[in-house]
Amino acid sequence: MSIAESGEFGLIGRIVSRLDAGSATLLGPGDDAAVVRAADGRVVASTDVLVEGRHFRRDWCGPTDVGHRAAAANLADIAAMGATPTALLVALCVPVDLDPSWAEGLADGLTREAARCGASVVGGDISASPTLTIAVTALGDLGGLDPVRRDGARPGDILALAGRIGYAAAGYTVLSRGFRTPKILVEAYRRPELRYEAGPEAARRGATSMIDVSDGLVQDLGHLAAASAVGIDIRSGAFEVPDQMRDAAQALGTDPYQWVLAGGDDHPLAATFPAGTRLPEGWREIGSVHDGSGVTVDRKPWTGPLGWDHFR
Amino acid sequence: MSIAESGEFGLIGRIVSRLDAGSATLLGPGDDAAVVRAADGRVVASTDVLVEGRHFRRDWCGPTDVGHRAAAANLADIAAMGATPTALLVALCVPVDLDPSWAEGLADGLTREAARCGASVVGGDISASPTLTIAVTALGDLGGLDPVRRDGARPGDILALAGRIGYAAAGYTVLSRGFRTPKILVEAYRRPELRYEAGPEAARRGATSMIDVSDGLVQDLGHLAAASAVGIDIRSGAFEVPDQMRDAAQALGTDPYQWVLAGGDDHPLAATFPAGTRLPEGWREIGSVHDGSGVTVDRKPWTGPLGWDHFR
Repeated sequence: MSIAESGEFGLIGRIVSRLDAGSATLLGPGDDAAVVRAADGRVVASTDVLVEGRHFRRDWCGPTDVGHRAAAANLADIAAMGATPTALLVALCVPVDLDPSWAEGLADGLTREAARCGASVVGGDISASPTLTIAVTALGDLGGLDPVRRDGARPGDILALAGRIGYAAAGYTVLSRGFRTPKILVEAYRRPELRYEAGPEAARRGATSMIDVSDGLVQDLGHLAAASAVGIDIRSGAFEVPDQMRDAAQALGTDPYQWVLAGGDDHPLAATFPAGTRLPEGWREIGSVHDGSGVTVDRKPWTGPLGWDHFR
Repeated sequence: MSIAESGEFGLIGRIVSRLDAGSATLLGPGDDAAVVRAADGRVVASTDVLVEGRHFRRDWCGPTDVGHRAAAANLADIAAMGATPTALLVALCVPVDLDPSWAEGLADGLTREAARCGASVVGGDISASPTLTIAVTALGDLGGLDPVRRDGARPGDILALAGRIGYAAAGYTVLSRGFRTPKILVEAYRRPELRYEAGPEAARRGATSMIDVSDGLVQDLGHLAAASAVGIDIRSGAFEVPDQMRDAAQALGTDPYQWVLAGGDDHPLAATFPAGTRLPEGWREIGSVHDGSGVTVDRKPWTGPLGWDHFR
């Protein structure tokens, strides 16, 4: 069956039946709008869009994988402000010949990833389109804390990272060369593994700035350095490059540090903390903040690829 | 110049420079997420997507028109809950050969329409895509009131409407037949004219249910009737069909009531109120609620088209 046959409202019904309400949901799908708890008196909000062929391929990722990835990309932005995600809204554009089971799998991935941090899908919209597109908006709650912005890093701060990095980019390269292993890399590309609590925990520990690394570490830290008017140095020795990544890089004739320093899609959080801060669990020191501008690696300019520009 | 030449971050800069911050904006574009005031402790949220070729045509509507329409479709959903809009987030997917000035015009339309109710564009995302697509999420504030849902209509209530209806559908038909006049109809299609305050005013006057009429009056009231488990009767004599609409219908060989009863895109609000309610300004009585199910027109089944299904 195609979505053209089940119709717009049939498809919405199929999807909504797969969603669970989270504790912040006061009114879920089915009305003109949802109502979500915002106990703090402020709401954190971010939007990210995934376009087939640009951000995912249906022959590389199942619908549930794509759902996890679409949710994670947005939930990570909320965590990067130091907030706890509460809700997702999803605008879904699908070709009329798409099997409704694909949209159901997507809904499963979205709702399961959201549930990992207590959030849920509270609303959305569906339209036909020649291009399969998933635009997700995430909402979150600061729990009384100040948002951790990109512009608060100060010279002398330490730079830290929570979450793995380079795995998804390695998996992307592996898949693009026609391979399906090593599994740990391919799976990392298909479905990021994030611990969203790392964001609020960093905020409580006094993080001076924070960013979701989605387009590549050097590029995203460049945004943070520019906003804070500081220089940032990354220490390459701080990264453990696992054997599978090293072996895959050798087999494919590439440098694994290009994945670590310029690869996107893992969505680790990068943050700066005052010198001497005892880092929260899951965070590791990877560099330092100094007077100046731009991003260096081991005190030298980075000459590899920068990261992802969605128009190039 | 194309967007491929200006690059992702160049385009974002051009757009963000055109946005104004509203009074609810605590942190606007430029970080991982925005922060918006939610003084009420709850936030109302809704998402609507516009796809080129389905919801708009670039040869019929300028970019600023499309921005107004995309914003209005979402802001109307917030108003239909009885809430006041506070913020918009926009996911924009554009062909790489699009002129950046088109995206700038879109941003102007979005921000001006949002400003009409005190809201502003606080964040977004941009990606390349073969299909020009605009997904907007609107946030709003209930100001201490209960949300006005679709399921509260009761037999004996009166049915009322705020805003014009049929104009945009008539304009769409005019344009699709290759005409550019009457101007009042064509302009109504290009740029809806809404008074968002009508939603909160209805809530304060005790509206028992409310809905944004976006897909056609009979179809959307059908959703309201089903949710409330009531029947709804529309009185066709309640609608003033202006001369331009009557003349256009005659010239095009159609019935103007098809535009009024089944046409979308004007986004008037329909609501039910307890019998005897003095309606707020701008609201007019158009029918009644009774025991039963479904929607009738002048107590008879409606045999015209129902409304819009985005897959048919």
